[in-house]
Amino acid sequence: MGFGERLTEATRKAGTPLCVGLDPRWESLPIELRSKRGGETPESLEALADAYEEFSLAVLNLVHGLTGVVKPQMAFYEAAGTAGLVALARVMQQARAMGYITILDGKRGDIASTAEAYAQAGLGGARHGKGLFPVWGADSLTVNPYLGADSVEPFIDEARRVEGGLFILVRTSNPGSGLFQNLDCQGEPLWQRVARQVKAWGQVSSGEAKLADVGAVVGATQPAELAWMRQNLPAVPLLVPGYGAQGGALDAIKPAFGPNGSGAVVNSSRAILFPYQPDATDWRQKIHHAAQKSAKELANISGMAGT
Amino acid sequence: MGFGERLTEATRKAGTPLCVGLDPRWESLPIELRSKRGGETPESLEALADAYEEFSLAVLNLVHGLTGVVKPQMAFYEAAGTAGLVALARVMQQARAMGYITILDGKRGDIASTAEAYAQAGLGGARHGKGLFPVWGADSLTVNPYLGADSVEPFIDEARRVEGGLFILVRTSNPGSGLFQNLDCQGEPLWQRVARQVKAWGQVSSGEAKLADVGAVVGATQPAELAWMRQNLPAVPLLVPGYGAQGGALDAIKPAFGPNGSGAVVNSSRAILFPYQPDATDWRQKIHHAAQKSAKELANISGMAGT
Repeated sequence: MGFGERLTEATRKAGTPLCVGLDPRWESLPIELRSKRGGETPESLEALADAYEEFSLAVLNLVHGLTGVVKPQMAFYEAAGTAGLVALARVMQQARAMGYITILDGKRGDIASTAEAYAQAGLGGARHGKGLFPVWGADSLTVNPYLGADSVEPFIDEARRVEGGLFILVRTSNPGSGLFQNLDCQGEPLWQRVARQVKAWGQVSSGEAKLADVGAVVGATQPAELAWMRQNLPAVPLLVPGYGAQGGALDAIKPAFGPNGSGAVVNSSRAILFPYQPDATDWRQKIHHAAQKSAKELANISGMAGT
Repeated sequence: MGFGERLTEATRKAGTPLCVGLDPRWESLPIELRSKRGGETPESLEALADAYEEFSLAVLNLVHGLTGVVKPQMAFYEAAGTAGLVALARVMQQARAMGYITILDGKRGDIASTAEAYAQAGLGGARHGKGLFPVWGADSLTVNPYLGADSVEPFIDEARRVEGGLFILVRTSNPGSGLFQNLDCQGEPLWQRVARQVKAWGQVSSGEAKLADVGAVVGATQPAELAWMRQNLPAVPLLVPGYGAQGGALDAIKPAFGPNGSGAVVNSSRAILFPYQPDATDWRQKIHHAAQKSAKELANISGMAGT
């Protein structure tokens, strides 16, 4: 079973293309979690990391059954120091144990053996001597394509070894993403060039999902690009960030989906993690309800509902 | 004193534009360091990380005075798990304490507040509440520009706050780097577009070095591109990887330098870290001599020698 198949199964089982982003931020955490660790300012990075771990594990429980895919953002754990990265490793382990498909969002990209080191750490485990050492153990990674094919191929090889996948940055959700991505390159915008390469890199799974193991990141803020991707590259799975707090509207996402809501996962982070004032005592319910609401909205707009 | 000034002072003091890359790899480490930690295969990631730390700290001592700049490659420490990242934090701390200018090579790049999290962790320290928490504490970072201006600006803001710098990926040293970087984009190759943007992002220091705080990564395998950069963007500092083991020839690097060998640092990793068979007992001398040789070669070719 290839990654395309695994991703499709996870979204179908949850009945929604929702992906919940794990982007912990101290300032937005419930006061309940902060007050015992320093209050306004964390006592230490260890205390901060501990709060991130408690919060992330709580979220994994609260959205269980409501989504099949989670996406931890490495930057926020890194900003909690090495203790934060230890917390991330535990969160990844728990996410896997709970059956989530994980997308580890580090947007890595480097040359040759360096890319291989990131790929092994991210996916199947680092090889040293004759040993195999799990590090993050993700099902898939986000990867930056700027360095070219030989920088992406080590990630592809490693992903394929473990039935994992990749999401290559194609057209990102930030307002300034067009600066290079939209440059006219020999008759088409750079992002389309990258997208065609993403298609060439992918291997379509043999099951009925007909989705490749190399996908593309295309922001919810780019509806025309989502439509182009879906029409021209139907087998490329899409990771769509920017829905919710970043301003991507529901209608804008609609073109991202294939038949029965297949082919795309839509990430929401802040709108699900922090739909409450920090002093709310019912933050758990609020997270659960926000995930329920997003899961349902996306099930409807994608066409997955009722299939 | 801006980053351009600090970088220039560090290379002048060492008398060479050499930058020593810290890319630890288990298979290449001296057997002396491996035998007490499992031999062919490390006993654990903790043992591996311990070996990386011992080796990296030894290298910092062995090349001290021979180079002013070191560049730890995050991927290799990450492939030693969270213990490896703890080792990296200690290596960074020691490098700073010894007066090196550090280039933390993670090739990060992300949007808005996520980029800010990476930038703070990499450079001046993470802010949470009213606290400032050092993480990697680097003097400069490598950054991938594909996501556009608003993904790079948080790095610039943070770098400027601490008189730090950035090296933006422009034309990388890998054989396949041209796939996107060389695409003709509205009359010029993509990498030149990126390079012009790098110039626009930079702020030239007020001292005599006349170098900006935003630099460019251009591989030693790209002599024409190095020459173009130096001629057209004289104030943009260059980080030149790929010299030595990656096949970049000495002559190819020559065009990278301005007057008196200024304006570029040339990275060498494997040729300095591993110029011996693993069972060599004189690996320390070999590292020292390899650094001496590279430092001298680069002092000569750059025009820094005798100035």
